[in-house]
Amino acid sequence: MPKIDSNVAAERYPSVRRLTEQLAEPLSAEDCSIQSMSDASPTRWHMAHTTWFFETFLLKQLPGYVSPSPQFEQLFNSYYNSVSELFDRSRRGCLSRPNMDEVREYRKHVDSLVRENLESGKFNDHQLAVLEIGINHEQQHQELILTDIKHGLACSPLLPTYRESVSENYADADASEIEWVDGPDGLVSIGHDGEGFSFDNESPRHLFHLVPYQVASRTVTNAEFLQFMQDGGYSRPEFWLSAGWDAVQSNDWSAPLYWKKAGDEWENFTLAGPRPIAMNEPVCHISYFEADAYARWAGCRLPTEFEWEAMVDSLSIKPDSGCWSDQLISANQAIHPRALVQNHGFDHAFGNVWEWTSSQYSAYPGYAPPPGALGEYNGKFMCNQFVLRGGSCATPQGHIRSTYRNFFPADTRWQFSGIRLGR
Amino acid sequence: MPKIDSNVAAERYPSVRRLTEQLAEPLSAEDCSIQSMSDASPTRWHMAHTTWFFETFLLKQLPGYVSPSPQFEQLFNSYYNSVSELFDRSRRGCLSRPNMDEVREYRKHVDSLVRENLESGKFNDHQLAVLEIGINHEQQHQELILTDIKHGLACSPLLPTYRESVSENYADADASEIEWVDGPDGLVSIGHDGEGFSFDNESPRHLFHLVPYQVASRTVTNAEFLQFMQDGGYSRPEFWLSAGWDAVQSNDWSAPLYWKKAGDEWENFTLAGPRPIAMNEPVCHISYFEADAYARWAGCRLPTEFEWEAMVDSLSIKPDSGCWSDQLISANQAIHPRALVQNHGFDHAFGNVWEWTSSQYSAYPGYAPPPGALGEYNGKFMCNQFVLRGGSCATPQGHIRSTYRNFFPADTRWQFSGIRLGR
Amino acid sequence: MPKIDSNVAAERYPSVRRLTEQLAEPLSAEDCSIQSMSDASPTRWHMAHTTWFFETFLLKQLPGYVSPSPQFEQLFNSYYNSVSELFDRSRRGCLSRPNMDEVREYRKHVDSLVRENLESGKFNDHQLAVLEIGINHEQQHQELILTDIKHGLACSPLLPTYRESVSENYADADASEIEWVDGPDGLVSIGHDGEGFSFDNESPRHLFHLVPYQVASRTVTNAEFLQFMQDGGYSRPEFWLSAGWDAVQSNDWSAPLYWKKAGDEWENFTLAGPRPIAMNEPVCHISYFEADAYARWAGCRLPTEFEWEAMVDSLSIKPDSGCWSDQLISANQAIHPRALVQNHGFDHAFGNVWEWTSSQYSAYPGYAPPPGALGEYNGKFMCNQFVLRGGSCATPQGHIRSTYRNFFPADTRWQFSGIRLGR
Amino acid sequence: MPKIDSNVAAERYPSVRRLTEQLAEPLSAEDCSIQSMSDASPTRWHMAHTTWFFETFLLKQLPGYVSPSPQFEQLFNSYYNSVSELFDRSRRGCLSRPNMDEVREYRKHVDSLVRENLESGKFNDHQLAVLEIGINHEQQHQELILTDIKHGLACSPLLPTYRESVSENYADADASEIEWVDGPDGLVSIGHDGEGFSFDNESPRHLFHLVPYQVASRTVTNAEFLQFMQDGGYSRPEFWLSAGWDAVQSNDWSAPLYWKKAGDEWENFTLAGPRPIAMNEPVCHISYFEADAYARWAGCRLPTEFEWEAMVDSLSIKPDSGCWSDQLISANQAIHPRALVQNHGFDHAFGNVWEWTSSQYSAYPGYAPPPGALGEYNGKFMCNQFVLRGGSCATPQGHIRSTYRNFFPADTRWQFSGIRLGR
Repeated sequence: MPKIDSNVAAERYPSVRRLTEQLAEPLSAEDCSIQSMSDASPTRWHMAHTTWFFETFLLKQLPGYVSPSPQFEQLFNSYYNSVSELFDRSRRGCLSRPNMDEVREYRKHVDSLVRENLESGKFNDHQLAVLEIGINHEQQHQELILTDIKHGLACSPLLPTYRESVSENYADADASEIEWVDGPDGLVSIGHDGEGFSFDNESPRHLFHLVPYQVASRTVTNAEFLQFMQDGGYSRPEFWLSAGWDAVQSNDWSAPLYWKKAGDEWENFTLAGPRPIAMNEPVCHISYFEADAYARWAGCRLPTEFEWEAMVDSLSIKPDSGCWSDQLISANQAIHPRALVQNHGFDHAFGNVWEWTSSQYSAYPGYAPPPGALGEYNGKFMCNQFVLRGGSCATPQGHIRSTYRNFFPADTRWQFSGIRLGR
Repeated sequence: MPKIDSNVAAERYPSVRRLTEQLAEPLSAEDCSIQSMSDASPTRWHMAHTTWFFETFLLKQLPGYVSPSPQFEQLFNSYYNSVSELFDRSRRGCLSRPNMDEVREYRKHVDSLVRENLESGKFNDHQLAVLEIGINHEQQHQELILTDIKHGLACSPLLPTYRESVSENYADADASEIEWVDGPDGLVSIGHDGEGFSFDNESPRHLFHLVPYQVASRTVTNAEFLQFMQDGGYSRPEFWLSAGWDAVQSNDWSAPLYWKKAGDEWENFTLAGPRPIAMNEPVCHISYFEADAYARWAGCRLPTEFEWEAMVDSLSIKPDSGCWSDQLISANQAIHPRALVQNHGFDHAFGNVWEWTSSQYSAYPGYAPPPGALGEYNGKFMCNQFVLRGGSCATPQGHIRSTYRNFFPADTRWQFSGIRLGR
Repeated sequence: MPKIDSNVAAERYPSVRRLTEQLAEPLSAEDCSIQSMSDASPTRWHMAHTTWFFETFLLKQLPGYVSPSPQFEQLFNSYYNSVSELFDRSRRGCLSRPNMDEVREYRKHVDSLVRENLESGKFNDHQLAVLEIGINHEQQHQELILTDIKHGLACSPLLPTYRESVSENYADADASEIEWVDGPDGLVSIGHDGEGFSFDNESPRHLFHLVPYQVASRTVTNAEFLQFMQDGGYSRPEFWLSAGWDAVQSNDWSAPLYWKKAGDEWENFTLAGPRPIAMNEPVCHISYFEADAYARWAGCRLPTEFEWEAMVDSLSIKPDSGCWSDQLISANQAIHPRALVQNHGFDHAFGNVWEWTSSQYSAYPGYAPPPGALGEYNGKFMCNQFVLRGGSCATPQGHIRSTYRNFFPADTRWQFSGIRLGR
Repeated sequence: MPKIDSNVAAERYPSVRRLTEQLAEPLSAEDCSIQSMSDASPTRWHMAHTTWFFETFLLKQLPGYVSPSPQFEQLFNSYYNSVSELFDRSRRGCLSRPNMDEVREYRKHVDSLVRENLESGKFNDHQLAVLEIGINHEQQHQELILTDIKHGLACSPLLPTYRESVSENYADADASEIEWVDGPDGLVSIGHDGEGFSFDNESPRHLFHLVPYQVASRTVTNAEFLQFMQDGGYSRPEFWLSAGWDAVQSNDWSAPLYWKKAGDEWENFTLAGPRPIAMNEPVCHISYFEADAYARWAGCRLPTEFEWEAMVDSLSIKPDSGCWSDQLISANQAIHPRALVQNHGFDHAFGNVWEWTSSQYSAYPGYAPPPGALGEYNGKFMCNQFVLRGGSCATPQGHIRSTYRNFFPADTRWQFSGIRLGR
């Protein structure tokens, strides 16, 4: 198990933890309490759960540690059956206690102990590795805080704002032309090479055989998706998987999540409130089913996760743009996908919208989950999920990489998920 | 339409409104946000909805009134189809805005206008009548605030406390013996006589023919209900209505709501947290189905609402005890049913536990709902509900009377509902 | 317990049993197997269940009786918890065995023993009383065979025919004018007087106080109901009970059951297949909710069951017409409500359509279910049901009377149920 | 598109069609009508649907063909959205017409026309290709007739028999020892090579890279699965996928489908009725979740579909045993998995139990569904399904091959599905 350097951790831990609190700042105690569906959790729960992670997998493993709030073990356990009984996930919004002040206290308590141990060099290698998982875990929940509060606020007829923000204005610009880029084929290496942090599901690195393919230079725009809609996309079963067609019918889908007709125009709900659809922005908040149906309508297909990874690796794209950071937040920049108006050959592979791949999430050859409760982190979800790649505008900077495998069920729409075509 | 005297209203309105806020005082913003089931609403919603009631049915009828928050029309409309579209009742817990501060502002805004108009004598008779309905409506929601927060807090494994409180201790006292009291039979008058306020469903007063009957001098105790349980009450279909037996199976009922086994003993969740079952207290938080099954097990039956009313009227029982008031709250008394240790011939008819009657809720002969939206207040619920009489410990003082008809579906358990036997 | 005369029974038993088989004659083995919803049962099941009733409550009580098929005890027990475990009611359509031939064998076996005992005078008074209940029970299931197969056949896009039939043709006749008839008021006697057979729920006969009222001389026609529909009846919440409005929404009701638009015209599915709506026939296959909404739209209300009974008793109407009989079936007459084209003052109180009353089904004062399993026959359903009076065209002759109380949940539509207005 | 030889087809078509009718012979009209769950269909429906397939995709394409029963288009269309509206799949059991006699007529009508055209050589190559798909399609439904009637009969407390049968008796024999067989690794060819018939989803044949692996020489026995159960397999979340654990909880699984405790012993429901579990037979009727959990418990994993195919191809195993045929049926042999008592190195790869692989069902590189309605045959199901390989005892002889990809959702249990371990 690779591990984070102790000094690096001493800097990274508090800064990541601080970012979580920064995300909650625009929100009232009431905002932090809402749970609009089972898949989403209250902000306050996220803040407690990420803390619980460090307490459970790090502090509680230290000799002599006594938890000040042993009842949190059950309340803030997300899905680790081997740790404790689970509190019903769909009822997190019914928990009013601990309240925000108490959760902040809990965070402080855990933070001070983690930092104390870190600074005094008391963590062994295994513990440093767990700490690094915890930091990355906290980042995952930062993204969920944003997607979950967006979903929660969208439930109110008031359509309230998470945070007013400024955004670059590309209203007049056309989206770039799609170009078809050849990716490497034949035997390629897939999976993480062990340099730096990665999750268990990115390993082992292994050979994979690819037949020749091409991937689009940018993701699909709102304008293009509107054409699909106007061509009857949502009412023509020939474009849809069988389960996708069922989902369209039973959920009455006729547009991406958060789209609403305002008079003759489509409007989009964003973290800064409602605003007209920007035609040059990537279509977003769509399910796998919609991505797949769009691709079939367009006479293309979705790339596999292996094609995606091989392509991106071959282009040596740096995952350093797009994602938000504390600077972006301090500058009051919008947390929203950027317009697709430039053409650098292969645009916004990282940090704009998660890109659905046609790959169902499964184990790499030789994969074994780590022993103990952390083995439940990724492995037990390898069923009925599709892989997304690349991160989104809601992903924190420093979290994403080319081998990163996100996964969600095919009907998931509340993540910042979009479409990159392959063929 | 009878109406409240303007001077009385000028005193009563602010005092009732203040009580609502007093009820919310022990609660955090987070507590005021939870909705633990469709039937229950967040405290904050109750506080806004009761205010909406005055704004909608009183202020908005005044010439020149402009609402500062027109969007609240939909958010806080409970069930008045003729006023506006309804916001999904089961998702009130997803509304984080307006938050508590904003709801308190809203209350102040409405209160100051209502008081201004009241004090300057600007309300006409109809408006005073509506105001009186609004005051009684607010009292109904005060009871719901208590029952709903009790349900909400009970969802948390922490079993938190609404408010610490003191309660009279009758631990050593035996419950009084049940005596069977003869009620008036033959032709009796049922329904409100028009003196003072009543809801539309208590009218018209009319003759009803009763055959001889008896009613128990007190409600059923926890000790007695435990005997039913120990005799297999929850597993013997012969005691249950067909729909009741279905409810037992599908909800896995084996004890009243809020009862839990703690080792060998039964514990009860109260507004002051968990505590051991007191054997001499009335059984409470049971459904009609359980009340009816208990009665059948006991070789008795439930009284009809007509028997109940005729009996209580004949005994001239004053509805002035039991219910809570600001004094009781200031004195930090428990909001919990009192032990049944005294015998005054016919005890605790008012303000201890709502008493299920065998009467399905329907219109009195000649009943007509008032015209307009307020016609939706009571009449449209006359289907699949049973009548309860007498008020509970969660009913505010001054709200209950002998002709008062509360009603809930047969499987309702979260109200303070108990059993008085008849035969 | 009154009892049937042994000689009468010796004639009545085989004739009623034969009628059941006559009803099944137009049906194939496949038709007799379908169950289109939980509330409906396959014809074959009805034929076995009614037989089970005689076997269980009569033959099995005789000394020395050994059942040839003890497994039928569970299969064909409808809802008698005290007899045996119940087979899931909604899965009766999954039982392919015993098949029709075997069920007919079962019927023969039971019939021959019942007749043998009857003819040899071996049944005691109690057993004769049970036998009479069984005969009336069989008649109830005859009606259900017809309503259930109608529902089952209606599920098929083929809209197949139960039986071709002839019907009187009144196409050109106008419906009679509605007249408002005064019923007896003050103290009236309600319930069965003990002469001849009645079910337990019709007793005890007791006094009931009625205020003055009127009842319409005939039931509501299709033409009148169409006006309600054209006036937006199904889309205006002001006419509906709250639960009724929910039912309209969630079931997407916009017309009575079995109505379908065929081009510009409405068509009705009947036991003889689809045919155009006859304007002068009574509206039929509507729920309590629709009956109640129609009445409110029409500025009237539904009568109570007490008003209905007092009215019909006062007019000495004989329940001998309308219902079907073996003559009617042999003559190939339609089983369908007759047109309302005559005016005899108070028309078709019996045997045309069941008439929804505003009375929720509950016990008469002093009612006690009989001891033993037969106590489950009626009493345990006194919850969330409304009373219907008068029988329908699907009720067999000799089964209905003025005190007869049928009951169904408020959203029931597959019975031949219609509307008679009161005010 | 490869096509069947006209002369071969002239022999094969009637013989396969006849087998379907042979399968229905032991069943009554009532048996052929039951639908015990949405996933299963009545025998009669299968017989009509397979006929509809030939009529729709073959006869209706012939000039001048007029269907004698155009309404069947909707009734017997399974899932081809591009052909017609679909009749609700879960309500096939509600269709009593056409009955068995009429369905047999329908079969004769289609058969005589197909044979006529075949014999006169009127089918072109495309039509012969469609005919061959239809024959293979009919075989798939033969298997479903068996699995569906097994499920249907199992619903009855009578536990009736599909057909009495004889089976080889291996009661005393031990299962063979599991041996671990090395499969070919590195770059292997996967998919059908174009010789003879295959479904579209088996193509294109392509290279796949495999790391070294081993596969067990036989499938898991009932004895071995019992050890898993006795070790708490069904109550220990650590063995289960997250969705699998949910399925265990919500379905209350504690043993394979059709297992029931009879006293101290486990009993199995078979097509010949209930009988004691044979310890040396393969565990069967288990979901992917159970297969996967068992593998984890055993310290192994399931093979991928690529490993399975490469292994079986490398061993040149002939798919000619196991599956049933008309001889087997005429000889009254049991349709039931055979005991695992022999060891030929790699046993019963074909025709005993379907073997769950860890591969989620997805498109081979370059896969494109055929144009037109037949494109809906396989491609639209590539989501949330796992691949099974090898066929079962319910698969007809001549239908299975090493590249054959069967697929079902992970919670499917009513197929004859078992476990072969890999590592």
